[in-house]
Parts: sequence; C-alpha cells; structure tokens
Amino acid sequence: MEEEIDLVGKAFADHYYHIFDNDRPALSALYKPSSMLTFEGQKIQGVEDITAKLTSLPFDKCRHVISTIDSQPSTFTGGIVVFVSGSLQLPGEDHHLQYSQMFHLVSVLEGNFFVQNEIFRLNYG
Amino acid sequence: MEEEIDLVGKAFADHYYHIFDNDRPALSALYKPSSMLTFEGQKIQGVEDITAKLTSLPFDKCRHVISTIDSQPSTFTGGIVVFVSGSLQLPGEDHHLQYSQMFHLVSVLEGNFFVQNEIFRLNYG
Repeated sequence: MEEEIDLVGKAFADHYYHIFDNDRPALSALYKPSSMLTFEGQKIQGVEDITAKLTSLPFDKCRHVISTIDSQPSTFTGGIVVFVSGSLQLPGEDHHLQYSQMFHLVSVLEGNFFVQNEIFRLNYG
Repeated sequence: MEEEIDLVGKAFADHYYHIFDNDRPALSALYKPSSMLTFEGQKIQGVEDITAKLTSLPFDKCRHVISTIDSQPSTFTGGIVVFVSGSLQLPGEDHHLQYSQMFHLVSVLEGNFFVQNEIFRLNYG
C-alpha cells in the first residue's frame, strides 16, 4: 500500500518537473525568501536568485524522466523530505544526464508546501 | 571561503562513513526512535531496525569514497541537510557502485546532531 506521504512526494515531484519542463519561470511560486538551492555545488538563496539560476541554465528545453522518488515526513517541521533520481534529456543529445535531487518541503498551510531546501547533482558514473 | 555549515556537513559525512566502513554496529549512536531510513526504497524506522538493516547488508566489508558533499542549514529545526554522492567499493569487485545519499540532521544540543531522515539510492547509469 502506498502511504500518503509517498503520494504527496510524487505529486510534488510531478508538479515541479512539469513546470520546469514547460514553464520554468513559474517555478518561482514554489520558493520563499528563506529558500536555498545548491545546484552543482553553487549555493543560491531566495526566490529571485533561485528563479534566475533555474531560468538561465544553458538549455532552453529539457525533459525530466523520474526513476525513483523516496519521501519521508520531516517530523519537526510538518514538512516532507523528497529524494528523486532521474534523467535529464536535452534536445539533440542522445546521452541522457543522470541526476539526483532532494527537496525539503515545509508546510505553510495544511497541504500547502514551499521548497525550503533543494540540492541538485548530476551523477557521473 | 568554506562556510561553517560545509565544515559541519563534511565532518558528519566523514564520521558516518568511517564508522560504516570500520564498526558498522556503532552507527546506532547516530539515530533516535524517530529516525527514518529509506534504503533502496525500503522504509525503516527507529534505532534497532535501522541498525539491523545496515548491519545485515549483503557485504561485510566496504569502503565509501565521497565525491561531493552539499550542506544547507535546515532553518526550522536548527539542523542541517547533507547531500552526498560517492562510490561504494566492495572487496573483490572491480566495479564501484555509485550512490547518492541524503541526511537530515536534527540538533539535540549545541553542535550535537542525530539523523532524523536518511535516504540512500544506488545510481544506475
């Protein structure tokens, strides 16, 4: 039986990557001023800077394909930890980039989360 | 300049893998009854069950080699989020297993953390 936490984690990941792949600037709605992103080792904080980073990556179009999603409650915040592995497909590239990414979602209202912590790393085999 | 949070994250990761590779049962000291581990999709909770899982993996000796460590403060808990990528080397195996692992450390006393959330995944290329 799939637990509720898994359903929430999956719904978030599907939502995040759908926005990322189709309307990347709209990702800004997921962050707050306290939000932190570490992208390939680069640390970024706050809605504007995180959105600027994500929208200025050196590719316009991309498609994320999720391989695994692991979710756990973040007991002391009423939030969720979501850990995703997957591949990033860029147009004209046969080779897919494998990645791992974690999100620490914190609750603002019942069932309503923002991304407090986010860390992205490509996996080199 | 390396921030303090990075030093703390690195110290934790070095500590965790040193114990894992040299005295695995002693990992139990890092967990509390509320601690959660998801290991390759299997969910485990609590000190005894987590320790039992980690000590019953199908290899006795192993060596973790860390590739990257990304750390962020977990603002609402006074804790830290640590995200590690690396390779797991097993005796007699030429091929190293690439993995990604995240830890959500929660503070009990100043500078003293336990693992509240831990997620481990092998990376398949």
